[in-house]
Amino acid sequence: MGGLHARNIAASPRFRLTAVADHNQELAGDLAGELGAPVRSYEEILADASIEAVVVASSTSSHLENVLLAVGSGKAVFCEKPLSLDADTLAGALPDIERASRPVFIAFNRRFDPHLRDLKRQFDEGRIGALETVHIINHDPAAPRLEFIPRSGGLFKDFTIHDFDTASWLIGEEFVELFATGSCLVDPEIEALGDIDTAKLILRSAGNILCVISNSRRTGYGYDQRVELFGSKGALRVDNLATTAVWRLGEEGTSAAPFPYSFAERYAEGYRAELNHFADVLDGRTAPATGPRDSLRALRLADAAEQSLKSGSPIILGGTFGNA
Amino acid sequence: MGGLHARNIAASPRFRLTAVADHNQELAGDLAGELGAPVRSYEEILADASIEAVVVASSTSSHLENVLLAVGSGKAVFCEKPLSLDADTLAGALPDIERASRPVFIAFNRRFDPHLRDLKRQFDEGRIGALETVHIINHDPAAPRLEFIPRSGGLFKDFTIHDFDTASWLIGEEFVELFATGSCLVDPEIEALGDIDTAKLILRSAGNILCVISNSRRTGYGYDQRVELFGSKGALRVDNLATTAVWRLGEEGTSAAPFPYSFAERYAEGYRAELNHFADVLDGRTAPATGPRDSLRALRLADAAEQSLKSGSPIILGGTFGNA
Amino acid sequence: MGGLHARNIAASPRFRLTAVADHNQELAGDLAGELGAPVRSYEEILADASIEAVVVASSTSSHLENVLLAVGSGKAVFCEKPLSLDADTLAGALPDIERASRPVFIAFNRRFDPHLRDLKRQFDEGRIGALETVHIINHDPAAPRLEFIPRSGGLFKDFTIHDFDTASWLIGEEFVELFATGSCLVDPEIEALGDIDTAKLILRSAGNILCVISNSRRTGYGYDQRVELFGSKGALRVDNLATTAVWRLGEEGTSAAPFPYSFAERYAEGYRAELNHFADVLDGRTAPATGPRDSLRALRLADAAEQSLKSGSPIILGGTFGNA
Amino acid sequence: MGGLHARNIAASPRFRLTAVADHNQELAGDLAGELGAPVRSYEEILADASIEAVVVASSTSSHLENVLLAVGSGKAVFCEKPLSLDADTLAGALPDIERASRPVFIAFNRRFDPHLRDLKRQFDEGRIGALETVHIINHDPAAPRLEFIPRSGGLFKDFTIHDFDTASWLIGEEFVELFATGSCLVDPEIEALGDIDTAKLILRSAGNILCVISNSRRTGYGYDQRVELFGSKGALRVDNLATTAVWRLGEEGTSAAPFPYSFAERYAEGYRAELNHFADVLDGRTAPATGPRDSLRALRLADAAEQSLKSGSPIILGGTFGNA
Repeated sequence: MGGLHARNIAASPRFRLTAVADHNQELAGDLAGELGAPVRSYEEILADASIEAVVVASSTSSHLENVLLAVGSGKAVFCEKPLSLDADTLAGALPDIERASRPVFIAFNRRFDPHLRDLKRQFDEGRIGALETVHIINHDPAAPRLEFIPRSGGLFKDFTIHDFDTASWLIGEEFVELFATGSCLVDPEIEALGDIDTAKLILRSAGNILCVISNSRRTGYGYDQRVELFGSKGALRVDNLATTAVWRLGEEGTSAAPFPYSFAERYAEGYRAELNHFADVLDGRTAPATGPRDSLRALRLADAAEQSLKSGSPIILGGTFGNA
Repeated sequence: MGGLHARNIAASPRFRLTAVADHNQELAGDLAGELGAPVRSYEEILADASIEAVVVASSTSSHLENVLLAVGSGKAVFCEKPLSLDADTLAGALPDIERASRPVFIAFNRRFDPHLRDLKRQFDEGRIGALETVHIINHDPAAPRLEFIPRSGGLFKDFTIHDFDTASWLIGEEFVELFATGSCLVDPEIEALGDIDTAKLILRSAGNILCVISNSRRTGYGYDQRVELFGSKGALRVDNLATTAVWRLGEEGTSAAPFPYSFAERYAEGYRAELNHFADVLDGRTAPATGPRDSLRALRLADAAEQSLKSGSPIILGGTFGNA
Repeated sequence: MGGLHARNIAASPRFRLTAVADHNQELAGDLAGELGAPVRSYEEILADASIEAVVVASSTSSHLENVLLAVGSGKAVFCEKPLSLDADTLAGALPDIERASRPVFIAFNRRFDPHLRDLKRQFDEGRIGALETVHIINHDPAAPRLEFIPRSGGLFKDFTIHDFDTASWLIGEEFVELFATGSCLVDPEIEALGDIDTAKLILRSAGNILCVISNSRRTGYGYDQRVELFGSKGALRVDNLATTAVWRLGEEGTSAAPFPYSFAERYAEGYRAELNHFADVLDGRTAPATGPRDSLRALRLADAAEQSLKSGSPIILGGTFGNA
Repeated sequence: MGGLHARNIAASPRFRLTAVADHNQELAGDLAGELGAPVRSYEEILADASIEAVVVASSTSSHLENVLLAVGSGKAVFCEKPLSLDADTLAGALPDIERASRPVFIAFNRRFDPHLRDLKRQFDEGRIGALETVHIINHDPAAPRLEFIPRSGGLFKDFTIHDFDTASWLIGEEFVELFATGSCLVDPEIEALGDIDTAKLILRSAGNILCVISNSRRTGYGYDQRVELFGSKGALRVDNLATTAVWRLGEEGTSAAPFPYSFAERYAEGYRAELNHFADVLDGRTAPATGPRDSLRALRLADAAEQSLKSGSPIILGGTFGNA
């Protein structure tokens, strides 16, 4: 993720990439060489008053610490989601972040995807009346390497976290109940590591809107990314993209091109757009679209999903849910 | 439903429509007049040795009684789903039905839909590897008249019953756990009558296959009927049909023709095919594809869904589930 | 074609199939046996005053003779397109046919296809403004057996004839200029027999609407049947159908089901609808939608196409074009 | 076009924009200001030895002169298509251009569109067997301003020129015959200016491959850009793109998002890719994919189309066609 954001920064006319930092000096060196920026330590960067903002794309477990350091140094911050894997820790840190003199933006890329934004725009224009239910399909093309599983935070915090935020954004109200169930169908090693690879969740909002989330770590056919809103007067959906607009007609039928394979391909525009949004924030044109509280809300939902999975029962989400 | 089946019988070269019976003499007369068959009482029909089979499409609450009478008279029976609204009553009647000298076919139309059959054929041929999860969307275009709600048996027995059977048929193994939740979003009068109009369910099979069912009584855009199978090597789905293959390109975008509006349109071929299947059964070429035990299984799942909705918890389905 | 129409007649509640005639006694016997109607000679049928109408689906070269005999016997006539392969002969026979006491319907199946009718309805409602150009793709799945080629009348009279009629029907005005070119790409034997298997034509109407027709005797992927209307405010098209609504998602991409393979499959509804139209004609509810003059118009266009192909130049169609 | 290319150059890591030249000083100044490069005269730029290459995107009538000046100054050249509006003049200049020390690349953007490239790749891999016919639809969303018509070179040289090059590239052999016809249906003022706004063309290649081109200056629904290849074993097509992957389901049917409206949107990736190709050419990794002879070929076809339109007859293209 660091490489992806660094390349987008280097290509943007609105930013200048001034330094690259990484615990892994080799990685940092390669990236710096490619993009023509020096490698510096994170401490040096924070101490350099000429640097206005930092993009934190370290491993998830160090997001919060790096953000707090940057905030303390008066930097504006762009941080990859999620801000933390532990909700209580995050809740405890909220006051410090919110007192920061400079904006802190937590990047949930779905909110900047032009397809999902068009869906939301049409919904906001009233094209399908009142919202009744939401379906989200978020299936990865292939399971991550096994060594990633233990430090991923688990399926819900690593993967479903996107869907929790997307659903919250689309529905515009808090969830009050959540039921999660899952299986380990892709790889028994994942189960041995205490995780699942397949999940189905049902969430209910304060206004009785129902949301279904489907997750899988492996499709066999690319990155399946669909969102559908069902309303009182119709439905809106973002369907999968195809890598090209080529169709082939043959004996076996009519075939479209494959899906984009990876998140980097599917959400390439979203990653550029969220960086552009951050430029707008730095320019003072707008406030960050998503901040620490959005990260906390999604994290609380992930915690509730883990609890539901373990207990086998739905979880009622408290009235102060999502708040510190 | 009686009219639909009677018209299909009259048009089939494999059947001769010999009589029509209905408590409502006017309806019976109209149908008989249209199709050139006499109105007779159900008792007369059962007593007529020249009649080989009866199609029971009465109100659901009298299905079982009418089937038992027919079985007792030595008739072969084609009965609209579901055979009963009460699982224990049905379980009690099973021995009598299964001792019948002539076949008893319970018609679940989805199993005869050419699109779902093609899906199942491709799955059975191994096109997507091992089955992992199933999604069913079954949304009606518009809520039924309110007077139908109290005698419908409720959303799960009236409507979801199709999905319970479809899922069982596609998965080919029994379900062991079920969670159902619902809302009343379409019409508050439905809630006042003790029913819901929107539901989401998650079922788990003995082999950990997960199945999501989505129901709504009203779409605003036609009869939304989709089934998707996710497997280890790909996915298969039956998408919605369009009433014609016409597309319009205009300023607003590219528009396909609307969906078929009603079940009668969407499943017209399925209704003809299930009648043809019954002809094969009568000719001794095959056994009924679905019988009383399939009806009982679906009914037990509907009962479990009601129980889950009321309790707010998942229901564990017993080891002898689906059996008498 | 005889078998197809006979089966539709037998299945229709609006007709009674009273006899089957064919020079080939074996074929006639098989069909008669299947449908429960006697084999009789054409002369006997024409002499039988209890028979109201005949369906002529003999070889094209005998269509006109059989129609004239039927007309002379006072029968109503349903004749497969085209009525003749020779325009002057047909023009000469027109007065006799048009003096007939009973209706003569020349069946161009495209006009009864529900998809094309929906296209036309939307166009007639003004959905795309004024018509500017028309594209027709009419490609067969596989070349006919070689022995059919010499008696087919050639590609333009056998195959493009449909498109000439469809275009005339959609545009609603006469063509004044035609350019045709072709190749023999599918099978050199077709060229040896003096025919072509691939053609592209451009027609211009009196109102300067341009129409492109594309023909091929072989696709490799089914029966490709598309029509597109481009207007001043948008476009309308009939796309290909798929045999089922099943989609498969796999590594190679997203695949729809194959096209209907044959004209009998693709236009099954159209064949039933044209028969139903003929029943309406017999009932006096409407005049035949297409008659001998439509057949003559299409035939004149086919003649012009042959002439254009041979001369290499566009053909100007005379002011009295399409008239006797 | 100058602005589009200048912005792509400024955003590319492989180029440095060193100067902007335009007869219109105000336009030049605005662009220069936006991109942070100085305005200089074309003469100064050509005289500056530190500048390696120029991009010529002047008005079409001065393309050739500007290219010859640049070639004479030892610059590498990227020139917008077409290189000239007069084939004989261009043929006369060919020797000078081809003797140039540095590469001259004539940019036909379709050849760099990722969708068309995927089509070609699949065709080259033999996915549809031998090529038989090609259909190209190239329809503009709205007619250009009337003052552009007289200096456009006419529909064939301004607009169809793309299709001539695309067809030549896809087919890989020369055309030997061409028939063009057209109408003025969009705006009678265009006719008054001696041009047409609607055209249909049929081209035949040396190997009897037939190609249909359809052009319109106005669709009412966006920029309609389709290419279809029909082969001996199947077909491949590039369909229109949609601006987003959002679908709306409503009473009126199922609607996709609108098409990209303009060439700048539709071919945005192609414009970037052709610039990247030019960087590869400058790096010596490859020769220009298209050069002056491709421009001459397309221009000769446009001349033939004008001649065919005027004469009403097909044009036979000579054996030395496309050569100087």
